[in-house]
Amino acid sequence: MNPHKQRLEQIREMMRVEGIDAYILPMSDPHLSEYIPSFWKGIEWLCGFSGSAGVLLITQKEASLWTDGRYWLQAQKQLQDTGFVLQKATKDHTYTSYLLSLLPPSSVVGIDGRIFSLKAKSELESLLHSAHISLHSQCDLLSPLWQNRPPLQREPIFEHPLEYALQDRGQKLSTIREKLRECGADSHLIASLEDIAWISNLRGSDIECNPVFMSYLLIEGLNTYLFIQEGTLSEELQKKLESEGFIIKRYEEIEEHLKGLRERKILLDPERIPSSLSQILHPSNTLIQEYNPSLFLKSIKSKEQIEHIKNAMEQDGVALCHLGIWLEESLRSGERISELDIESKLHSLRASHSLFWGDSFNTIVGFNANGAQCHYRATKESYSYIDDKGFLLLDSGGSYLNGTTDITRVFPIGEISKEQKRDYTLVLKAHIAMSSSVFPQGIAMPLLDALTRAPLWKYHLDYAHGTGHGVGYFLNVHEGPQVLSYFAPPLEKSKVYEGMITSIEPGIYREGKWGIRLENLVVTQLDGVSEEGREFLRFEALSLYPFERECLELELLEKSEREWINSYHQEVYSRLSKYLDSKMQKWLEKKCERL
Amino acid sequence: MNPHKQRLEQIREMMRVEGIDAYILPMSDPHLSEYIPSFWKGIEWLCGFSGSAGVLLITQKEASLWTDGRYWLQAQKQLQDTGFVLQKATKDHTYTSYLLSLLPPSSVVGIDGRIFSLKAKSELESLLHSAHISLHSQCDLLSPLWQNRPPLQREPIFEHPLEYALQDRGQKLSTIREKLRECGADSHLIASLEDIAWISNLRGSDIECNPVFMSYLLIEGLNTYLFIQEGTLSEELQKKLESEGFIIKRYEEIEEHLKGLRERKILLDPERIPSSLSQILHPSNTLIQEYNPSLFLKSIKSKEQIEHIKNAMEQDGVALCHLGIWLEESLRSGERISELDIESKLHSLRASHSLFWGDSFNTIVGFNANGAQCHYRATKESYSYIDDKGFLLLDSGGSYLNGTTDITRVFPIGEISKEQKRDYTLVLKAHIAMSSSVFPQGIAMPLLDALTRAPLWKYHLDYAHGTGHGVGYFLNVHEGPQVLSYFAPPLEKSKVYEGMITSIEPGIYREGKWGIRLENLVVTQLDGVSEEGREFLRFEALSLYPFERECLELELLEKSEREWINSYHQEVYSRLSKYLDSKMQKWLEKKCERL
Repeated sequence: MNPHKQRLEQIREMMRVEGIDAYILPMSDPHLSEYIPSFWKGIEWLCGFSGSAGVLLITQKEASLWTDGRYWLQAQKQLQDTGFVLQKATKDHTYTSYLLSLLPPSSVVGIDGRIFSLKAKSELESLLHSAHISLHSQCDLLSPLWQNRPPLQREPIFEHPLEYALQDRGQKLSTIREKLRECGADSHLIASLEDIAWISNLRGSDIECNPVFMSYLLIEGLNTYLFIQEGTLSEELQKKLESEGFIIKRYEEIEEHLKGLRERKILLDPERIPSSLSQILHPSNTLIQEYNPSLFLKSIKSKEQIEHIKNAMEQDGVALCHLGIWLEESLRSGERISELDIESKLHSLRASHSLFWGDSFNTIVGFNANGAQCHYRATKESYSYIDDKGFLLLDSGGSYLNGTTDITRVFPIGEISKEQKRDYTLVLKAHIAMSSSVFPQGIAMPLLDALTRAPLWKYHLDYAHGTGHGVGYFLNVHEGPQVLSYFAPPLEKSKVYEGMITSIEPGIYREGKWGIRLENLVVTQLDGVSEEGREFLRFEALSLYPFERECLELELLEKSEREWINSYHQEVYSRLSKYLDSKMQKWLEKKCERL
Repeated sequence: MNPHKQRLEQIREMMRVEGIDAYILPMSDPHLSEYIPSFWKGIEWLCGFSGSAGVLLITQKEASLWTDGRYWLQAQKQLQDTGFVLQKATKDHTYTSYLLSLLPPSSVVGIDGRIFSLKAKSELESLLHSAHISLHSQCDLLSPLWQNRPPLQREPIFEHPLEYALQDRGQKLSTIREKLRECGADSHLIASLEDIAWISNLRGSDIECNPVFMSYLLIEGLNTYLFIQEGTLSEELQKKLESEGFIIKRYEEIEEHLKGLRERKILLDPERIPSSLSQILHPSNTLIQEYNPSLFLKSIKSKEQIEHIKNAMEQDGVALCHLGIWLEESLRSGERISELDIESKLHSLRASHSLFWGDSFNTIVGFNANGAQCHYRATKESYSYIDDKGFLLLDSGGSYLNGTTDITRVFPIGEISKEQKRDYTLVLKAHIAMSSSVFPQGIAMPLLDALTRAPLWKYHLDYAHGTGHGVGYFLNVHEGPQVLSYFAPPLEKSKVYEGMITSIEPGIYREGKWGIRLENLVVTQLDGVSEEGREFLRFEALSLYPFERECLELELLEKSEREWINSYHQEVYSRLSKYLDSKMQKWLEKKCERL
């Protein structure tokens, strides 16, 4: 029997015993991270799906995985024979409304409150309440069943050198305490790992590709408590932190400590705090539900940070040039190269740089049909060789002490068909449309997304993922608050400001054929001010690697689009060529030739 | 003493007597109409502001008019010496949050519940409640003070001939009863005049420019009650309606009738029912709060309706051509022409058509600086002569039995400067960007608006009004549900479907100099279907009148934009020339020459 089927039956048995009619298991952890440690990968353990977003819904009759368009192809494969079915989650098809349609009044829904944010739990609760369904929020069905559950990572914590961090943690804490005062708060509980890493100028390696460490941070009046796993801090660093006023506690002590709090006014971010932690607070405390101040502070990069990031982008672009020429030469010489070879070659090219820390996410190398799966990953068990003509999609990035990169390019292999050229050109047109746009400071980014998609819509094409995400600074590669996607509601937190770094990554995916995604990171710069004093922003491209001239259908390009490509290529050449030998300079010069 | 100052003092005196700390007076009536009868124009009576949107806020210390960007220039003028000040209403500056900042707990706010929708009243109430402020909703301060208040209009009701209405009222009522059953309702109260006119195929003339009549419609089980003013229905029409099952009641009887209802399940549109009417319903009734089904039914025009509308557009375009040539010739011959002359000339040109009913809104003829006021209206007391060079903005429309038109063009007078040409070209680029776009069926229109504005944003320009509104069919010229504006939230009701008619009207306004707005009505047509079966729509231009070739800076236009202009001009010429004599044909041919 398929192990997943067996686990599903065990879960159902426990649900019967506990009187739970439906169990909801989100892809989440007590820090509400996007990428979660293996310890919390209950969805993969239960149904085999390894994507980074999804929710399981289990009743006695049905078991379904709800995930978005990026993962439909992958989920369909991975769910085979597991007893679970794929439900394609969209704006109009959500697991909550589906759940409500399944359950009669007086049913009981179970969740593990440790991996539901305060906001998600409250919303679910009020939805269920209106349908006379009750919610059990301390329902951990996995722990009793999960044999050989992987432990939490417990890697050494290290400092982000001030030379690159640029602002010391004392300054950051003062700014946050000022924001707390403005909100009427005297305390602040933070569970989101990227906020803690940013504030503390500390980094770790507890989550794959994300330089963060398992922790909680509590500002309690004048005290600052850092809760971390035992043995992760060197004696030296611990002393340094203590001398700066930090009180170091064990990760596991957070609940006990919170139980002891009295009459505090605590700022909590309802989207970034697990509901289980807010529930144990004594009623004498007042909860002030606001965004973490650090969410916005860290999203606006300073001029000095941007200079560092530009240096990182140059190193990253050089690594890609080395990869590009290696790929061309190897294939030309008849070498047989696999997707995995490309991944490891690129990693070693990036790793040769002294400020490199690691990949900023799992590299996606997808040849032809594999590239049509947005979040495809080649594995030792399943990968392709580049031994046909077609498109090779490469989406990758590096975490450097001086910045985080994320870039997607598509390499033509052999002769490219007219249809492929058209698709490549349309995606580049979409990329240019957004990259060259000018827009009012403070507009909600979802309202801009149509600009990217319009050139694709004209051909009745679209892509089932967002156009762009915020990016951290030697931190997470997906880091809000802004989000560039018309699937997202236009909210206060999705507004765009000068100094934010965002990706622009439209795509076309032809199932079974090829995938094209063209992505640069960009930073918002002031473009000018209207007569009435309104500020307008533009994007400046940060990522540096040419697009493929030979994949373009020139007659599809407007004059202004050609000009954009020429000017970007000129920038790429002038910034990268100084790091290249003369042979590679010639290679790059050719790639960057004017259209 | 300024009469407005005096009225303000009288209102304040009454507020003191009644114990009201703040009084809110919206521009509204018991039908929540956009354009309201003089009887309900309390804002104009009180403060002198004659625009079509605004709210008055009065306390003992402050009195302010809140209105949006279309009316700021006009309001500033009209409020002088009235005791009222202008507050520029924006997304981030609303009268409700301002009110909350003014009032201490235990204050009392007064409104007249007859002119607040159920939704607006509930929202206000819960906002005030959370600040411990109470709301008196039966607070009519105007009636006791308003001397010589104009009576309600009471014009004859007439039928929209079936030849143009196309669907008889019996069919429309069956469709609505089906929708009621789907919602679990057995009854339906309608207060919005355009819904009643559409369902009943009746029209009236009780509101300036809107072919509607003061009424309520109540579907009560199998009965259909129509509440109308006495003496507005001919004996013949009354008999016809009664023979079709309508029960005719007096307008004033609505409240008594509603009080008598018991144990009904009544569908009410909370945005389109005055809170006062829902409050008098007996508690044994169940209120089902949903959009009026007719809101959506009437927004999707049938192929036959669109054919009629295209005929109306041709007649309207011909009238404009006659105006254009008359204007050119008169000015060339040295005649002195005023804005008012143009308005009345255009009216008489339109009125010569047998299906013309009246102007669909008050014509805006604004020369130079007057055109910079979005909703300027020339009056006998204040108007300009066209006796300088510059831009003449003309925004006008007609109500025909076979359709409603709304078009804006800008006519160059004498020599046009480089800056003026640039502005004209940019507005046309914005117009073309939206007009030529393709987008998924069912997308919320606010998400598309950036496409229109992007060409202006590049020059740090924008306009403080929406890009487009829905349009009725021989009904109101502003008629939802869809709205094309990034100021509006993307909601279910703002989604776009095939067969909807919308305006596209971007602009540039240079205070004290000139205004440019270029507007066509467009209808959404199916453009194609993606491989996955997703439908994509495009706009087809309905309005027919050329743009001004001599106002274009050709080097600012992309190839695709020139092609759009050429193809639109070809359509204008081929559709209109058949109605013109040879002299006018030549004139139009020249205007429509290829770029």
